[in-house]
Amino acid sequence: MSGLLSVEEARARLLALFSPVGTESVPLAAAGGRVLAEDAVATRPQPPFDASAMDGYAIREEDHRAGNRLAVIGASAAGARFEGAVRPGTAVRIFTGAPVPDGADRVVIQENTTRVEDSVTLDEAAPGGTNIRPAGGDFMPGDRIAAPRRLAPADLALLAAMNIARPVLRRRPVVALIATGDELAMPGETPGPDQILCSNNFGLKAMLEAAGAEARMLPIARDTPESLTAAFDLAAGADLVVTLGGASVGEHDLVRATALGRGLDLSFYKIAMRPGKPLMAGRLGTTPMIGLPGNPVSAMVCGLLFVLPAVRRMLGLPEEAALRFPARLEAALEPNGPRAHYMMSRAEPEPGGWRIEAFGRQDSSLLSVLSRANALLVRPPHDPARASGDRVEFLWI
Amino acid sequence: MSGLLSVEEARARLLALFSPVGTESVPLAAAGGRVLAEDAVATRPQPPFDASAMDGYAIREEDHRAGNRLAVIGASAAGARFEGAVRPGTAVRIFTGAPVPDGADRVVIQENTTRVEDSVTLDEAAPGGTNIRPAGGDFMPGDRIAAPRRLAPADLALLAAMNIARPVLRRRPVVALIATGDELAMPGETPGPDQILCSNNFGLKAMLEAAGAEARMLPIARDTPESLTAAFDLAAGADLVVTLGGASVGEHDLVRATALGRGLDLSFYKIAMRPGKPLMAGRLGTTPMIGLPGNPVSAMVCGLLFVLPAVRRMLGLPEEAALRFPARLEAALEPNGPRAHYMMSRAEPEPGGWRIEAFGRQDSSLLSVLSRANALLVRPPHDPARASGDRVEFLWI
Repeated sequence: MSGLLSVEEARARLLALFSPVGTESVPLAAAGGRVLAEDAVATRPQPPFDASAMDGYAIREEDHRAGNRLAVIGASAAGARFEGAVRPGTAVRIFTGAPVPDGADRVVIQENTTRVEDSVTLDEAAPGGTNIRPAGGDFMPGDRIAAPRRLAPADLALLAAMNIARPVLRRRPVVALIATGDELAMPGETPGPDQILCSNNFGLKAMLEAAGAEARMLPIARDTPESLTAAFDLAAGADLVVTLGGASVGEHDLVRATALGRGLDLSFYKIAMRPGKPLMAGRLGTTPMIGLPGNPVSAMVCGLLFVLPAVRRMLGLPEEAALRFPARLEAALEPNGPRAHYMMSRAEPEPGGWRIEAFGRQDSSLLSVLSRANALLVRPPHDPARASGDRVEFLWI
Repeated sequence: MSGLLSVEEARARLLALFSPVGTESVPLAAAGGRVLAEDAVATRPQPPFDASAMDGYAIREEDHRAGNRLAVIGASAAGARFEGAVRPGTAVRIFTGAPVPDGADRVVIQENTTRVEDSVTLDEAAPGGTNIRPAGGDFMPGDRIAAPRRLAPADLALLAAMNIARPVLRRRPVVALIATGDELAMPGETPGPDQILCSNNFGLKAMLEAAGAEARMLPIARDTPESLTAAFDLAAGADLVVTLGGASVGEHDLVRATALGRGLDLSFYKIAMRPGKPLMAGRLGTTPMIGLPGNPVSAMVCGLLFVLPAVRRMLGLPEEAALRFPARLEAALEPNGPRAHYMMSRAEPEPGGWRIEAFGRQDSSLLSVLSRANALLVRPPHDPARASGDRVEFLWI
């Protein structure tokens, strides 16, 4: 298999075609799962004042003795502080989150007190914390959420607490999907006797959108230069053009010729992997283009291994070696050939880790198998025969 | 801590308030991540005909001998089959995915042939498979994708291949989020000196939407019956009303009183867990209501442990014990008290599994800590002291 690139080398070459897309300021409520493009910097402390962590009474530490009876001189509520000061022998009723009044340096929790009219008696002097959250204990002005970062739910809450109403995010990279082939009918149509349904573009669209891209599904391109040209025209403005099918060595391959006719600066990768025929990649003017195989499993696996990293790069996220997890092999495997094999598999938790079993049928046309898989068992080139119980590695899909 | 419910028991009681929402037929391109509500049944076989797995020549097995020279009598392309039959001594040029012509029962791959004008010579008789994908090898009429199922990208491709253009999905359950409190300002506003920013509802919204719900963020309800009443009125039509804050035992708790005034059939759970004050749950007429604590970390953890399972139930998904993963503890922990403790932690892969370290500060007001966490280390009630290297369990967040 000399002349074939490893998956890693092909991915590195392909990623060199990409750079981060532009940024946009987005309302916070719409920022979940999006990618922060500029550091978000707090301009205020949180909490903005010493705040009570409990419902109880704000007192002076010197008054903190079991049996001590204090005059209740007011109340401090969240949103409405007590404006006076706690003097010796006095207490202020206080609620969780409320500002601690001047003079007080402890909150006793209400369960440890007895209230009678305008006085409160401390039942016990509880050791330990003061039940006060100091100003700035969560964050201080200048504290930041560092970009790039994919925003998780807790990040949204933190941005809100920082009063960052419109964070600066990477815009969603736009990926145009062009399925090609005379044999394809769209779901909802009645396919002719020689036709099959177009499926790759639906799978890729869902995969790309879950990763933060916007996928534009274009009309199916037929196997004519005119139809392919029309599809490329419709892809104008996209950040990435992905073709599906037509990248093989067959005579019916027109995608390559048509793209070359439009000025494609072609890098064509022959990759030492299964599933996956040659991957086409290059630049159409300033726009990167990736040609994926037409077989559905190949298209989805190549989408995972090559297109998703490209989306991450466009989102400004660091390159991330796809995390490989160890697992215990359930059923023995034959020796692998010269190409890395990404086998459709099912991984299940077991005490202390994971067990995995590759499906018996691995043909790259079998969507029903891929749909049952939750993992790709990764076999390196020339991996020897594996016995049940061996340690192997897998990727989640 | 007698009288307190375990997390599991509180969750079971809470889930009894919920049932699956209705269904809707949705265009396939918009179905990614949604939940299939009715089995999707194939009405056609895939492939619909015996199809070539390779580019090459369709021949009869009896002609499969090294050196044999066959007359090429036509071509079968994907989408345009060869209408004749392959007779002894003949071959048909064929491309991947094309129908195999009558009479042929093997495809020889083109790399193993030599083509000269209208004849082709077989260079070698390759053993092994016929390179033919049999009709129905992927799926047959009547094969199904069983509901309920959250649709992964490969499922979308499979639905497309089955020609199911509008699968029947659960509609997205609508969750109304009501943040309460005089102390709250909305991001973008200038908070008063005693105010903090409203953050829980942004975090919850992102969490719920990632799980497949539609979150409606209502205006902040102030600590008056009128304001709370207005908020409940705005929540009309939601499948679930979630209030944030105001569920504590403090005098400023008006949420409970207002909801009771509107006919709330209250179940109030005191749960043996940290973080998390009492959880309020019940029914307002036919609409379930959950009252979450106001502290941001408590709200997010209770969202994860109680609201997400409710969303799953509304989506018709089976109850799923949150998957606990084993990990090696990095730094020793004190004995735990009588309540289960969900500690904000960082889990990182290591050879053979995961290692985890709980953050030193666990106060439920600390969003900056939650934002750095990727896991909750779960400590059962009365868990003894743990040493570095001990095996513990965690949940992903």
